[in-house]
Amino acid sequence: MKIGFIGLGNMGMPIAQNLLKAGHKLTAFNRTRSKTDQLRPFGAQAASTPAEAANDCEILITMLSDDNALEKIIFAPGNCINSLCEGAIHISMSTISVSLSKRLAEIHNAKRQHYIAAPVFGQPELAEAAKLFIIAGGSPEKIKFCQPLFDAIGQKTIISGEQPYTANVIKLAGNFLIMAAIESMAESIAFVRKFGLGGQTFIDFIASSVMKSPVYQTYGNLIVSEEFQNAGFKLRLGFKDNRLLIAGSEEAAVPMPLASLLHDRFVAAIAQGLSDCDWAAIARISEQSAELKGVLK
Amino acid sequence: MKIGFIGLGNMGMPIAQNLLKAGHKLTAFNRTRSKTDQLRPFGAQAASTPAEAANDCEILITMLSDDNALEKIIFAPGNCINSLCEGAIHISMSTISVSLSKRLAEIHNAKRQHYIAAPVFGQPELAEAAKLFIIAGGSPEKIKFCQPLFDAIGQKTIISGEQPYTANVIKLAGNFLIMAAIESMAESIAFVRKFGLGGQTFIDFIASSVMKSPVYQTYGNLIVSEEFQNAGFKLRLGFKDNRLLIAGSEEAAVPMPLASLLHDRFVAAIAQGLSDCDWAAIARISEQSAELKGVLK
Amino acid sequence: MKIGFIGLGNMGMPIAQNLLKAGHKLTAFNRTRSKTDQLRPFGAQAASTPAEAANDCEILITMLSDDNALEKIIFAPGNCINSLCEGAIHISMSTISVSLSKRLAEIHNAKRQHYIAAPVFGQPELAEAAKLFIIAGGSPEKIKFCQPLFDAIGQKTIISGEQPYTANVIKLAGNFLIMAAIESMAESIAFVRKFGLGGQTFIDFIASSVMKSPVYQTYGNLIVSEEFQNAGFKLRLGFKDNRLLIAGSEEAAVPMPLASLLHDRFVAAIAQGLSDCDWAAIARISEQSAELKGVLK
Amino acid sequence: MKIGFIGLGNMGMPIAQNLLKAGHKLTAFNRTRSKTDQLRPFGAQAASTPAEAANDCEILITMLSDDNALEKIIFAPGNCINSLCEGAIHISMSTISVSLSKRLAEIHNAKRQHYIAAPVFGQPELAEAAKLFIIAGGSPEKIKFCQPLFDAIGQKTIISGEQPYTANVIKLAGNFLIMAAIESMAESIAFVRKFGLGGQTFIDFIASSVMKSPVYQTYGNLIVSEEFQNAGFKLRLGFKDNRLLIAGSEEAAVPMPLASLLHDRFVAAIAQGLSDCDWAAIARISEQSAELKGVLK
Repeated sequence: MKIGFIGLGNMGMPIAQNLLKAGHKLTAFNRTRSKTDQLRPFGAQAASTPAEAANDCEILITMLSDDNALEKIIFAPGNCINSLCEGAIHISMSTISVSLSKRLAEIHNAKRQHYIAAPVFGQPELAEAAKLFIIAGGSPEKIKFCQPLFDAIGQKTIISGEQPYTANVIKLAGNFLIMAAIESMAESIAFVRKFGLGGQTFIDFIASSVMKSPVYQTYGNLIVSEEFQNAGFKLRLGFKDNRLLIAGSEEAAVPMPLASLLHDRFVAAIAQGLSDCDWAAIARISEQSAELKGVLK
Repeated sequence: MKIGFIGLGNMGMPIAQNLLKAGHKLTAFNRTRSKTDQLRPFGAQAASTPAEAANDCEILITMLSDDNALEKIIFAPGNCINSLCEGAIHISMSTISVSLSKRLAEIHNAKRQHYIAAPVFGQPELAEAAKLFIIAGGSPEKIKFCQPLFDAIGQKTIISGEQPYTANVIKLAGNFLIMAAIESMAESIAFVRKFGLGGQTFIDFIASSVMKSPVYQTYGNLIVSEEFQNAGFKLRLGFKDNRLLIAGSEEAAVPMPLASLLHDRFVAAIAQGLSDCDWAAIARISEQSAELKGVLK
Repeated sequence: MKIGFIGLGNMGMPIAQNLLKAGHKLTAFNRTRSKTDQLRPFGAQAASTPAEAANDCEILITMLSDDNALEKIIFAPGNCINSLCEGAIHISMSTISVSLSKRLAEIHNAKRQHYIAAPVFGQPELAEAAKLFIIAGGSPEKIKFCQPLFDAIGQKTIISGEQPYTANVIKLAGNFLIMAAIESMAESIAFVRKFGLGGQTFIDFIASSVMKSPVYQTYGNLIVSEEFQNAGFKLRLGFKDNRLLIAGSEEAAVPMPLASLLHDRFVAAIAQGLSDCDWAAIARISEQSAELKGVLK
Repeated sequence: MKIGFIGLGNMGMPIAQNLLKAGHKLTAFNRTRSKTDQLRPFGAQAASTPAEAANDCEILITMLSDDNALEKIIFAPGNCINSLCEGAIHISMSTISVSLSKRLAEIHNAKRQHYIAAPVFGQPELAEAAKLFIIAGGSPEKIKFCQPLFDAIGQKTIISGEQPYTANVIKLAGNFLIMAAIESMAESIAFVRKFGLGGQTFIDFIASSVMKSPVYQTYGNLIVSEEFQNAGFKLRLGFKDNRLLIAGSEEAAVPMPLASLLHDRFVAAIAQGLSDCDWAAIARISEQSAELKGVLK
């Protein structure tokens, strides 16, 4: 298929590469131009504007950092919305707000274009291995049409519903579960450590028995080792996602006190200068408030 | 080995049966006498007082509902503490407070008896299948001596440390992780449902991808189906365990805001008359506060 | 002075009337035109657009419901920003975000206009009685120049600093204190009532002794009487103000867990359909979660 | 009247002195004997055991630090409960749990003695000035009989109900309102300060306008000045009172999330070694989590 691709960050880049490897034609745009060069060896064309990437393609894929970035790409002067053909499909893979996703659905519809929300779960390693989990919301027929693309980048696609925003709802709720698991581990590791126990022993036991989950092993290890510098997912992005969740919960009128607690943890972590660390660094707040410094691990 | 066994509740009964099946001799006491009759076919003796069960045994196992019950059994007039022989081992499997566990260690020590804290993870089905997870705290030598007993009832034993109370610390922290996972699912299911999505779809996806965990599948199913009447673990026991956790966190001076949030959920659930439901029924609070009644699942 | 006045809601109307009574000339604009008619007897001119109200005045006063409304009035096509003269002063009395206030300061400055943020404390009755409390942020010289206006509408003006946004910071923090007092009364009234005590007795005692504060008496009475229908200040406006506070706390990186708790209470109250009640109706959430229905007051 | 008085701490001492000044006969006991010497000049007798103080008096007043201390005094061997005459009245002024107060009512009743719960509001200065606020729960007739005593030590007595424990309920709820006010000021002062504003200006404005309350002025000043060393009321006692509140809220099944938030603040403050500071030192937690160190006041 003929694909326009916008956003070559640490998720977009491996996704684009996997699409190229699968034999699709791809014209890519990235704000920092040099990134597109990395795709050349795989046969990609470089576009000099978003509009150029959107022009003439059957499918436009966007993978951007937030609402703001996506809005600019789609709506700003020289934008995609006008250069995208009638009948073309916009697949938005970014983690964005429910309300922007609703707005995109309306606008694409008015332009007789199609819109699929398809946010993904998985960190860059999973993206490279073409093992992402994809949640696709939108017209079942159009999703079916795009399935070869999803197969080229992920291990599993689930369909959330005919309304594209449903995919965003699930993405935000899923991220929330991970954050909540991190916070629960942060507090419990502070608890066991302050009683003189090793955090690693605790996590090894828990992750292989009661919780039986790789998420608990991975993040538990990270919290215990405190190696937050190599961020798999940055704390400020986690904060952003939590804000999107809270915005959604306000819109739907669903009180989520655990999301509010996570909000406070993120704000405290940001005050401590941890924005660019891995989001598991919210564990520092549990550690500090328990005065664990000086206590042996 | 010659075992005294006190407490034939829905955990104690299958544990006792598995010990008998493994060929150990067992004298059992239960407050409601009739329960001991169920052990007769397996070859158990019935004791008419706790002291009688403790008398003359190499190992005394207690599996009771809370601190109060255990204190009575051990310290009340006609109690175990005086009838237990020097050199005998008391294995306490109940989920009790860190401070009671510390006190038991001191007192047994003063009586030249031994004390192992060995709380377990797993619901009655796992106990029946001899598949419990056991955390043992105490003298490594004595734990080794008791290993055949642990093998007869569980699939895995981990040793938490030489101080028995360390096992109780890990048990409380582990239960907290489960409760936190339940609360995070409760809030996120309310969130996706209020946007018109099916809770079951969400849980099926999450439990098999992002979280990859049977705990999320099991409790997610329970929350979505709302079949809280058949309690695997009663809400009021979950509340009790959370109070023990908070008591421990006060003792160690570890602020645990997520534990406090769970406390509030439990109190609200108790106000709604849900004490005898499964502890996953704290999900009703998320449902009610989001006014989900009448919204299709 | 020659004043342009925009926003004749239940706060703006009495403020405009008091300015007219004090002898100032006033050209007023309101989205619902008929409101300006109520000012005619006091000698006001009616403007048919915001730009017309801003045109030619020495001082432009805006009193609008939120950021959005103010942004439209100031920046939309046919807006105030271009019709306001060089050297004129914009006094923004609305409760708006810190970031919008910062933006207004920059833009007015670029246009060689002046900007004072002057949010007020006090409900409509206090506005009618010209007894508002005014917090003014901006150039001391310009605030001094405007003092006769503040004296015409309030009992006290305090100066927060040379940066206009400082006044907005104090307004948001002050509102937060009231909301926190409401929540604390809501929880404690639920507490005493569930023990069979009368909420009114409790409030009468507290407000006249320990807390010695009219706020506690007024809101305590309201919570006990449950007369939330006649809103002095609507719950959805309280929610909005709390969101502005939280936005400010994110900007400044100040974790405010009590503000997050209030957020959850507001969302729960909105889910219960209480948006148009008095903001003290968040007390219903404490009442419901304690299952107080049926318990005598 | 002939009074037995037990507990000469920083509240009990001035209360006892005021009773003596009013002409009552008083036999006092204190764990640290030397304290009773300070009452000699006022004409008090010193008792060498609690039982001796209770013996033969018409009224026994106890003013102790917590449940534990009071239980020992009343129930331990050589205790008051047996030496107190039939028909005598026990006035318990300590801040104790609702459940202990209920238990005392039962036991005194069984012994044909009378029991009034009469906790007080006010710090030592107010006690010295005989300006305490007293909440009395119990038989109206007996409270009337004791009124001269209350008049000798306080400025106002309110009657909470015929059940003595109602007075304890109100005392706990009232303390909670003060703690909540402190926390709200702590968060808002951190908020305004991080925006570069002076905390003192904020408090002076708020306490004299919106909140119009001496509590806000007093505690606001304390938080801004950070003079937590001279404790008017120690943080660990505030923590204790909050625990009694939470215990009461569990008993009555009233979820109180703000009380839980305060719990977490107290635990964090205790982890920071602030137990013996004034309870307003929970403000340090807001300050630290906002990383305010180095920011000018």
